[in-house]
Amino acid sequence: MTGVFITFEGPDGAGKDSVLLRVVPALAAHLRVPLVETREPGGARISERIRDLILDPDNTEMDPRTEAILYAASRRQHLVEKIRPALAAGKVVICDRFVDSSIAYQGAGRGIGEAAVAALNDFATEGLKPDLTVYLDVPASVGLARINAHRRDTQYDRLDQETESFHDRVRTAYLKLAAANPQRIKTIDATQALDQVCADTLAVLQQYLVNYWQE
Amino acid sequence: MTGVFITFEGPDGAGKDSVLLRVVPALAAHLRVPLVETREPGGARISERIRDLILDPDNTEMDPRTEAILYAASRRQHLVEKIRPALAAGKVVICDRFVDSSIAYQGAGRGIGEAAVAALNDFATEGLKPDLTVYLDVPASVGLARINAHRRDTQYDRLDQETESFHDRVRTAYLKLAAANPQRIKTIDATQALDQVCADTLAVLQQYLVNYWQE
Repeated sequence: MTGVFITFEGPDGAGKDSVLLRVVPALAAHLRVPLVETREPGGARISERIRDLILDPDNTEMDPRTEAILYAASRRQHLVEKIRPALAAGKVVICDRFVDSSIAYQGAGRGIGEAAVAALNDFATEGLKPDLTVYLDVPASVGLARINAHRRDTQYDRLDQETESFHDRVRTAYLKLAAANPQRIKTIDATQALDQVCADTLAVLQQYLVNYWQE
Repeated sequence: MTGVFITFEGPDGAGKDSVLLRVVPALAAHLRVPLVETREPGGARISERIRDLILDPDNTEMDPRTEAILYAASRRQHLVEKIRPALAAGKVVICDRFVDSSIAYQGAGRGIGEAAVAALNDFATEGLKPDLTVYLDVPASVGLARINAHRRDTQYDRLDQETESFHDRVRTAYLKLAAANPQRIKTIDATQALDQVCADTLAVLQQYLVNYWQE
């Protein structure tokens, strides 16, 4: 039996971390197969070293395409070392962000182009797509306001226009992906209260994983 | 005026380093515009850090596609920081290895596939192709024998079959590229004596750069 590959996606401030924190243990309690929760770089040593390069604040001269390529390299190694073996062992894999994030953030947000970033990532994944993607949708203004509520030292109105337009492009790209892949990507209204977002998410997961489910 | 982008390619043991060492000063003496000689990572700090990752002997678990993606990332940053500015300034750029090397070594040699590696590199280069490529051609057996003549501690017959078949695939890929791009790629018979290889190379360069040439 081959496993099930599930990804979680969403713009900043969609509440993805909070939702995963509540939903993953609930899901694990109902699954008849082992569950693996991961995110890039996911403990793959080479992926971590690539990640360090991407995030190093000294690398101010990094070109946006170099950044997108490095994300694809980190993803490749994580996929080979962690995701593929878990799927081959029949596990359910929950991955926090995957190719859709690169399409939205690098492709649309940074303006490289969504099709080009998708093609780049096809090389990295050899076409492996998630079986199911939970997309937590919030408008850029709501997401940014939430992020800012966690930052005492800054006010929402101090965010410059470019930031909001960047996040608008990211969200629009996600909506386009969801519209183009209705079988794979299930959109959850993440402007709702956290309890409701988690309930909606679990309902989507239960429906998809019905053959793996036990009460 | 935009510059001229020239690359040098060839299998291991083709004598590329020796040819460049002789040809580049001779070329510089005849050019009416500045000449820049470079090779990846070419002093681009981020490219160097990526290169360190690729070449680190500890990274034995690196997947061949991860390696190919990292070469593309290093290439991208070198292109942005060094090659494009020099071309924009009207210079002649001589680059020791470029995309064709990845197609031959990663695509054919490591078996990833030449078209896939070409597409990956299109993302990195945004389609920038060399104006002229000097391809120094030698059969795998000749190239490997030359490399081995420089190594006192090993004998040619100790090279295992896989090594020779790897280098055969690399050379075949180069020949296919040369056949498919006859305008761009000029093939030099590098089994000849070094003097003749250098003379042939300079003749190709002079012919292409006739408008930049002074006696």
